[in-house]
Amino acid sequence: MRELTVNLEERSYPIYIGEGLLTRAGDLLLKHGLSTKSPLLIVTDDRVGPLYLDSLTSTLEASGFNPVSFVVPAGEQSKSLDVFQSIITKALEVGLDRKSAVIALGGGVVGDLAGYVAAAYMRGVRFVQIPTTILAHDSSVGGKVAVNHPKAKNIIGAFHQPELVLYDLDTLKSLPPREVRSGLAEVIKHGLIWDEEFVKWCDDNAERLLALDPEALGYALYKGCSVKAAVVSEDETEQGLRAILNLGHTIGHALEAVAGYNELQHGEAISIGMIGSAMLGVQLGAPIEVYERTRRALGLVGLPTTLPEHLNTDRIMEALMHDKKFGEGKLVFVVPTAIGKVEIRNDIRSEWIFAIVERLKREESWT
Amino acid sequence: MRELTVNLEERSYPIYIGEGLLTRAGDLLLKHGLSTKSPLLIVTDDRVGPLYLDSLTSTLEASGFNPVSFVVPAGEQSKSLDVFQSIITKALEVGLDRKSAVIALGGGVVGDLAGYVAAAYMRGVRFVQIPTTILAHDSSVGGKVAVNHPKAKNIIGAFHQPELVLYDLDTLKSLPPREVRSGLAEVIKHGLIWDEEFVKWCDDNAERLLALDPEALGYALYKGCSVKAAVVSEDETEQGLRAILNLGHTIGHALEAVAGYNELQHGEAISIGMIGSAMLGVQLGAPIEVYERTRRALGLVGLPTTLPEHLNTDRIMEALMHDKKFGEGKLVFVVPTAIGKVEIRNDIRSEWIFAIVERLKREESWT
Repeated sequence: MRELTVNLEERSYPIYIGEGLLTRAGDLLLKHGLSTKSPLLIVTDDRVGPLYLDSLTSTLEASGFNPVSFVVPAGEQSKSLDVFQSIITKALEVGLDRKSAVIALGGGVVGDLAGYVAAAYMRGVRFVQIPTTILAHDSSVGGKVAVNHPKAKNIIGAFHQPELVLYDLDTLKSLPPREVRSGLAEVIKHGLIWDEEFVKWCDDNAERLLALDPEALGYALYKGCSVKAAVVSEDETEQGLRAILNLGHTIGHALEAVAGYNELQHGEAISIGMIGSAMLGVQLGAPIEVYERTRRALGLVGLPTTLPEHLNTDRIMEALMHDKKFGEGKLVFVVPTAIGKVEIRNDIRSEWIFAIVERLKREESWT
Repeated sequence: MRELTVNLEERSYPIYIGEGLLTRAGDLLLKHGLSTKSPLLIVTDDRVGPLYLDSLTSTLEASGFNPVSFVVPAGEQSKSLDVFQSIITKALEVGLDRKSAVIALGGGVVGDLAGYVAAAYMRGVRFVQIPTTILAHDSSVGGKVAVNHPKAKNIIGAFHQPELVLYDLDTLKSLPPREVRSGLAEVIKHGLIWDEEFVKWCDDNAERLLALDPEALGYALYKGCSVKAAVVSEDETEQGLRAILNLGHTIGHALEAVAGYNELQHGEAISIGMIGSAMLGVQLGAPIEVYERTRRALGLVGLPTTLPEHLNTDRIMEALMHDKKFGEGKLVFVVPTAIGKVEIRNDIRSEWIFAIVERLKREESWT
């Protein structure tokens, strides 16, 4: 088992990564002082629940806890205020109190939703993350929790740090290959913004990662979480540095909005977005290898590196401008200056982005 | 103008109390660095809005701000997730961004609701409190914000401190006499838990307070806010000390639940609750004058000191037990040991409370 700490003074917490951790959940929760007198509320979805809910419940009961569960439909549509209110109703019915904890068992949707319940219920109760996807190594660390409004994603939320993150590698074995690849996009992103050595390591171990080799996967998640933890420790509430975690996300979010989730999963969209950002970096003076190595790293794990041609560039630009409204009128881009190094720029002209989006549709190589 | 500070390190903020402050709101918001580039969202209700919204909007516009407003129906039923979501929709439509602020113009309901919007929107934007009731001198200080669930009050919320509190005494002139008295209950409470001198002052100035004499009212609100600020500075998230602010509230909430708001307003319910707590204090060894002086202070401003006989004691006890569920199975009471001094007890037996509730119905004097 690997362990690392997110340093946030009195809100510091550990991340445990290893095989078989789900069966040790009871012990780990006891070790972290969670109350066995107050009920625990496990939130999961109807895809993950049938696989792991019984065994999690058993191990918690064996340690003297009193867990109850609430299962939501799998998928982004569960991140709504309606589902949020249903979970609060359940919490009231089972008598969740100030010493209780909410446990998220699932991917990013479950983590964000359950985390926002934990942040809001009685103005905040304890929270435990048990991520079951690779993508969630990103969302489960750092305390960003939220639900969606019909008109905007993640617009209703809080910063609410978990007590601990418990990453059982065994739960990743049930992931479909497309979700594995999508999750690796955020892993590689953590290398691209912070750690050149780790990008090399990802290149060299792409095959093992795709095969879900536990040793490789454990190391990759450990490194990814370490970068996330280091950034979050410096800037918990995104006053500055934390924005570097958005590498590829400005373009990526616009692509998601235009393409729809079925055509482009989050990791796929930010893969294309990161390549666009690398193009932008080169245009602003970074060496060409920044683009080439970004493209190579993402391609090696089977992520898309070009944009489906039928996606309309004007519509993508509109979606970008919609985001801009919330950046006080400026487009904000995270731009690589080298592999493992980025800067935040708000002087990017929309014509440049238009050209890059067009280029992403046809680019086979830079030259 | 009086000014005091709530000390919470980087979240410290001032409370301004005086006449004519609404017309200086633009200046004060500029002084505190609120952005004139990003829209401001004023939340008010349909009772306060018609009186003060135009003048607040004008003064903000004169200072270069770009205010928009959202008016909710007056009353507790607006503290719902539905109304919350409508305000978020409005915020999105007008392009509220991370540098924007939400302004609460109104009493406790508006403050709690608007504050929770400010806490949740984009995971937290700036917040300004402009209380227009005496009661709100309590709720506008300390950062507790929330909406109700159909099954529980204030169960969905956050701790979100304002940037400043702006208390214009002129806005209190429109308060109905019953609301003036109700508000004075929390003012006197702040004396009873913390400051014997101030309780004496309230006795001596009861007439002036009821007549809304600006000098007396300004001083009383200043003292009330000072006590609240001192307690909150010690214990922002109610880990311990902050619970003393609940003097009279355990019984008071149960009375509100059973009587309904039309029969007992919040201040009236806690007035009776504080007298019950004083009885409990005497029973536990405090001098009889603790009861007598509590009763006298509340009676002098016309607050009820006895419980309407038709309210069923069994139902009041049931409502108390409902609260108990959330105190990890214990009834928690704030009990005075002297005037200006209280302790927190969780060893109170429900038979004692039953006897006190019965006594509150007939008590004319202790002897």
